[in-house]
Amino acid sequence: MTESKLENPEISDDAYLLNAAHVADILDAVQNGQLSPLEALLEPLHPADIADLLEQISAGEREALLTLLGDRLDGDVLSELSDSLREEVLDFLPNDVLTIAVRELETDDVVDLIEDLEEAQQGLVLGALEDADRVAVEQALLYPEETAGRLMQRKLVMAPTHWTVGQTIDYMRDQDDLPEQFYDVIVVDPRLRPVGKAPLGRIMASRRDTALSEIMEDDFRTIPALQSEEDVAYAFNQYHMVSAPVVDANDRLVGVITIDDAMVVLDESAEEDIKRLAGLGDESLTDRVISTTRRRFPWLAVNLVTSILASLVIAQFSSTIEAIVALAVLMPIVASMGGNAGTQSLTVAVRAIATKDLTGSNVWRVIRRETLVGLANGILFAILIGVIGTFWFGDAWLGVVLAMAMILNLLVAGVAGVLIPIWLEKLGIDPALASGAFVTTVTDVVGFFAFLGLAALLLL
Amino acid sequence: MTESKLENPEISDDAYLLNAAHVADILDAVQNGQLSPLEALLEPLHPADIADLLEQISAGEREALLTLLGDRLDGDVLSELSDSLREEVLDFLPNDVLTIAVRELETDDVVDLIEDLEEAQQGLVLGALEDADRVAVEQALLYPEETAGRLMQRKLVMAPTHWTVGQTIDYMRDQDDLPEQFYDVIVVDPRLRPVGKAPLGRIMASRRDTALSEIMEDDFRTIPALQSEEDVAYAFNQYHMVSAPVVDANDRLVGVITIDDAMVVLDESAEEDIKRLAGLGDESLTDRVISTTRRRFPWLAVNLVTSILASLVIAQFSSTIEAIVALAVLMPIVASMGGNAGTQSLTVAVRAIATKDLTGSNVWRVIRRETLVGLANGILFAILIGVIGTFWFGDAWLGVVLAMAMILNLLVAGVAGVLIPIWLEKLGIDPALASGAFVTTVTDVVGFFAFLGLAALLLL
Repeated sequence: MTESKLENPEISDDAYLLNAAHVADILDAVQNGQLSPLEALLEPLHPADIADLLEQISAGEREALLTLLGDRLDGDVLSELSDSLREEVLDFLPNDVLTIAVRELETDDVVDLIEDLEEAQQGLVLGALEDADRVAVEQALLYPEETAGRLMQRKLVMAPTHWTVGQTIDYMRDQDDLPEQFYDVIVVDPRLRPVGKAPLGRIMASRRDTALSEIMEDDFRTIPALQSEEDVAYAFNQYHMVSAPVVDANDRLVGVITIDDAMVVLDESAEEDIKRLAGLGDESLTDRVISTTRRRFPWLAVNLVTSILASLVIAQFSSTIEAIVALAVLMPIVASMGGNAGTQSLTVAVRAIATKDLTGSNVWRVIRRETLVGLANGILFAILIGVIGTFWFGDAWLGVVLAMAMILNLLVAGVAGVLIPIWLEKLGIDPALASGAFVTTVTDVVGFFAFLGLAALLLL
Repeated sequence: MTESKLENPEISDDAYLLNAAHVADILDAVQNGQLSPLEALLEPLHPADIADLLEQISAGEREALLTLLGDRLDGDVLSELSDSLREEVLDFLPNDVLTIAVRELETDDVVDLIEDLEEAQQGLVLGALEDADRVAVEQALLYPEETAGRLMQRKLVMAPTHWTVGQTIDYMRDQDDLPEQFYDVIVVDPRLRPVGKAPLGRIMASRRDTALSEIMEDDFRTIPALQSEEDVAYAFNQYHMVSAPVVDANDRLVGVITIDDAMVVLDESAEEDIKRLAGLGDESLTDRVISTTRRRFPWLAVNLVTSILASLVIAQFSSTIEAIVALAVLMPIVASMGGNAGTQSLTVAVRAIATKDLTGSNVWRVIRRETLVGLANGILFAILIGVIGTFWFGDAWLGVVLAMAMILNLLVAGVAGVLIPIWLEKLGIDPALASGAFVTTVTDVVGFFAFLGLAALLLL
């Protein structure tokens, strides 16, 4: 299997080359110190696969592999590594290996590589670059983090409005430093302001004497260099853009962003939302035990406070529970159902805010819907739990208390699940990060208070 | 503000044109039945924005707007609508409006538009197409759902290996039916098997007499037509691909997939995982109250069973709780902490499985890490809650019981959080969908059992 994959990587049915058998073969070669089998095994892999490989093996195996590979390490592998592993690998690489690896990279990849590094490591990488590249990277780093200016590439193809297709083609044939990938020629006025975009396919399909201005698209979006990268990714996704010129405050062309960069940002920000909703920090699978423990601690600490608050509510009803111990048995049900319904509601709201689907125009409609859905499911589950409670403990009034508490808590869960994210967003707090704690507090407190309070009123 | 945005949509600082004021203006025009102001307000909007607009307004406003707009509705708006709203709009549109709208679309957009529709509506749209387009759409529909064959476009530019740059350019100049967007010429052998990809930029930068075979990339991936669309999206993201030829079982070229299609799939599958992790079905913000209630019911029903299981555990300890009512006050804390730690763990595992980062090569390392993180946070929170419990109720043994139960439950949460998703994946069940219920059951049962059981042993 491995051999046929090596010969024909592109026609494998599996989208992914790096299977466990392949990894085992690579580790065998490393253990035996065999460089040429190692190189043969790495050859069909994309730098992203090699980065995945490094992430999947142990720290010791990683060092052995990198030592054996030496300056044959592809610089692109560094770009593909997760942040925490990249720092480890950079610390380990000898200076000459680093220099060779980094000089292979495009400057926008270098920016991406170093922007999250500590200053000492940044200096190390910058020092390894040629002068012209170093200046380009340093200029990109002047833009604030997570903006279009950091994301864009500076190398691009532009043409003045008066050029013809023939002139444009001749110009490109004369250039020996064209960008590796580009899809449009950006047409600019004498002040370097973009006035149109001529797709390559359209240029090639036109006669040499056609004016660029005739075939260019003038209905296109430019991106301000200071726009946040999440907004950039949003625009690419929403408007099906493939590339867009980036402009400075004076509308002058300073770079270009292509869809592959936007795809990376979009992927990262969905990943970030998933993690934040689960109370995870910015962790990756390669983080060590200590740093993972530290990253997960704060969310658990918040939850500890939340659950102590719930306990304080329960403590108010100690004498009620002492009188009817069935209440202690049943009380987690209402709170837990509220927590789940609240999570459903808040996840819808958090994602709708992130995808700009929840706006001033429909906020009341969404709140109304969540309220009604909470009420409807509240009634359905009230009937279910009311019957169960009645028969379990042979007490119809206990069933009634359960049912009333259930309706109230699912209703509150629906409302809180949508209001809290909206309110956090208005305060400038990331709703994905903080909504869960608030909503669970509300549903726990209301769940226990409603159930035990109604029991104290109706059952004692 | 609205007016300046209308004049210069492309230089707005905001990535998004559709603000509340703009929506209000549009609804004003609709209410007054003014067609030309409506058209002027819609003109700067992208079809995706108009779809968002339709999603944000009420059903009544939607009907009024569509009636006023009539056959001026852009067909692309239909492609951009969410599934549930698309069905509503298609039911409402008169046949002649539908015909005009659908005939504007590229065939791959029509496939995307109709694949989730009911048969009657599918027939309606197919009937509106011209014969040649209808055949193309019907052929695409022969591929199974969610495969590369459904995602690809059939219109592409290919060239035989012996062609020169000049011949390729002349061929394109003669064609009047080139794809709207394409980035490569696919070079094929006489049996139509792709042997290389020549990027347009590289063709344009080469002299006319250069052979295509000299400048083409021969290191590229082809995508089997039956590959799942999630694997396609994964490959585009992992390997930074921009376009890729799709081949049939005989390796013959049948279509091409571009990065913008892959971006849509990637976005949708992340969104799906977020929703499934929160116990949400395939719902959208425009679903009605009844269908939303119905979609959320099953997850809440599963949670009801889970929490009744937990109650059954508590019921075993009724006499213990009767003796020490403080146990009822404190018992939700341990269960809740376990639930949260388990959610952290399972989210990491579910995402690592989805991004193919959790494999046979590192599964034991990840299990070991989650176990140790669970143990470490267990010890930290055991100390905290042990001290709190001791002082709150003035009973050191109660603190010891809390602490021991906390360590045990967070340890179990870490292990279950990673083992359960792996085990579900092996059984062919989507781990994003089902892990939450299983992990919470485990942490609830263990949490209550450990705390109350230890209390029965040590405190009575």
